Amino acid sequence: LLIYHREQIEQALNPPELIQSLEEGFVAYSEGRVVVPPVGHLYFDVPPGECHIKYGYMVGDDLFVIKVATGFYQNPDLGFPSSNGLILLFNQKNGSPEALLLDDGYLTDLRTALAGAIAAKHLAPREVSRIGIVGTGVQARLQLELLRSVTPCRDVIVWGRSRTKAELYKENMVRRGFSINVASQIEDIGSNCNLIITTTSSRTPLLYADQIRPGTHITAVGADGGGKQELDAELFKKSDICAVDSLKQCREYGDSSYALKNGFISEEQLIELGMLIKHSKLSRSNDDQITVADLTGVAVQDIEIAKLAFSALHGAALDEKAAISRAAEPFDLSK
Amino acid sequence: LLIYHREQIEQALNPPELIQSLEEGFVAYSEGRVVVPPVGHLYFDVPPGECHIKYGYMVGDDLFVIKVATGFYQNPDLGFPSSNGLILLFNQKNGSPEALLLDDGYLTDLRTALAGAIAAKHLAPREVSRIGIVGTGVQARLQLELLRSVTPCRDVIVWGRSRTKAELYKENMVRRGFSINVASQIEDIGSNCNLIITTTSSRTPLLYADQIRPGTHITAVGADGGGKQELDAELFKKSDICAVDSLKQCREYGDSSYALKNGFISEEQLIELGMLIKHSKLSRSNDDQITVADLTGVAVQDIEIAKLAFSALHGAALDEKAAISRAAEPFDLSK
Repeated sequence: LLIYHREQIEQALNPPELIQSLEEGFVAYSEGRVVVPPVGHLYFDVPPGECHIKYGYMVGDDLFVIKVATGFYQNPDLGFPSSNGLILLFNQKNGSPEALLLDDGYLTDLRTALAGAIAAKHLAPREVSRIGIVGTGVQARLQLELLRSVTPCRDVIVWGRSRTKAELYKENMVRRGFSINVASQIEDIGSNCNLIITTTSSRTPLLYADQIRPGTHITAVGADGGGKQELDAELFKKSDICAVDSLKQCREYGDSSYALKNGFISEEQLIELGMLIKHSKLSRSNDDQITVADLTGVAVQDIEIAKLAFSALHGAALDEKAAISRAAEPFDLSK
Repeated sequence: LLIYHREQIEQALNPPELIQSLEEGFVAYSEGRVVVPPVGHLYFDVPPGECHIKYGYMVGDDLFVIKVATGFYQNPDLGFPSSNGLILLFNQKNGSPEALLLDDGYLTDLRTALAGAIAAKHLAPREVSRIGIVGTGVQARLQLELLRSVTPCRDVIVWGRSRTKAELYKENMVRRGFSINVASQIEDIGSNCNLIITTTSSRTPLLYADQIRPGTHITAVGADGGGKQELDAELFKKSDICAVDSLKQCREYGDSSYALKNGFISEEQLIELGMLIKHSKLSRSNDDQITVADLTGVAVQDIEIAKLAFSALHGAALDEKAAISRAAEPFDLSK
């Protein structure tokens, strides 16, 4: 069993290079070539906490993946992060454990950001005038980072509930080459941006239909479970393309679920990201369309990112081994 | 994250000492103090294989447990064992991963054998004249080993489908202080033994009601999934006490499930091992009763054995650390 820590994982991966493999994962998922049983859950009362076990595999692959994620929301009071977890990779041909990725949730953050970049790649207008970021946390940072490889636009407006955190976000991202303005009100996002990413754990809508201009694409990544909502349901009615990562999940939760339940859209109007990737004619056809992508997070992303990390790490380990063995070879004195 | 391998785990544990804790686990399970969601399953076609994820916790405990077990039945053809797996322990108060037990299935074997010893402790006749072992594999060995602490009887008859394996079993167990006879026919078990353990993965009954003498106790540990059966269903009709580890599971599979489905016994006649342990008046009341225990394996055993292993290993690690730090202390020259 090979064991890798977060630092090694971060060093081994070049995120923009992973976009294509993640796209292939979404396509495989939408084509039914991924086995993903229902998520396992454990809930705790004292202190309140939860554990989710996601597992599955791509048919015909070499590996299968089990991801364990925990959330204990009183941890920050004690000085620990609230989320934790790890990923196990097993051999799909003989069942033996191959690797343990102690990624501290990094790969989950990354696969979510990669999905955002993929949605923007297929749905953003040709010319992004300004990017709007809603939220100021890890996803707000990662999503913007990953958009680099999708659009040349570096002009950004950020909005967050906490002005202090928004200023901190600005400071961080300016250092990384972006031009950042902090919005004093959320309405500034819709009226100034035509590519918007919402990354909060809000339980009430933040963006409304009447705030959004024609030609805008919005990706919402925050509503990954019941009760969470970032986009008003009517926004889906106003959209020309409503993409989701998983039809099955979005029936139950995610922003689009509210639009479905309110009858603002029918299930036939939702299109899975995997289908958009595969059939480019289903994507945005002009620069006046409003498009929206509701990303709730699907296990195929975990499967793909775990495999990519393992392959990068394992490759690096093999390279190092080869380098050591080369170094250990005696010089050929006959030359 | 602390990581322990099979050898360390075997060295740290003294199995007979674990009986009481396992008993407490069964009692907690029967009293509803254990949270055990449905098992997660993955199935593979090429090559055929499966993965089972068992997880749960005892309410109010410090830890929770996730066990991953795989079975790939063509592995032996390639020179690998068919089963594999590992156990993860997480902190129940903050969700952080505490330990990984790379036990190669040892703890599963051990917890199964411990359950057998517990069943015998509560149901075997006062005087065990001879022990009958059906099967010649790992469980056949471990069950007999664990019976040492429950009965002074060392006189054993073994039966297996393969005479060669039965002779090998004899050789092994004679070396460990048992007197072993190899039965030439399965009927010899019932007619000569009053404590019988069946440990096979048989899919057709091996022991029948008319083979069993009054005063006999039988524990069946092989039928841990659908389709497996070691005891004829009528044997339950003839038994005075029918114990099971989990009523819920035995409705679906295990030897007793066939007796239930055939109407030979009603569910009210089945008693959970945890209840037997707690209320000694429910146990065998005389030496003429026939008793049977159907053990299908419950997650509380995995939870208990993982905690016990971790505690033994962690304690040993702390002792070692203390010893090193003591050794490193300079002598007090003032004395």
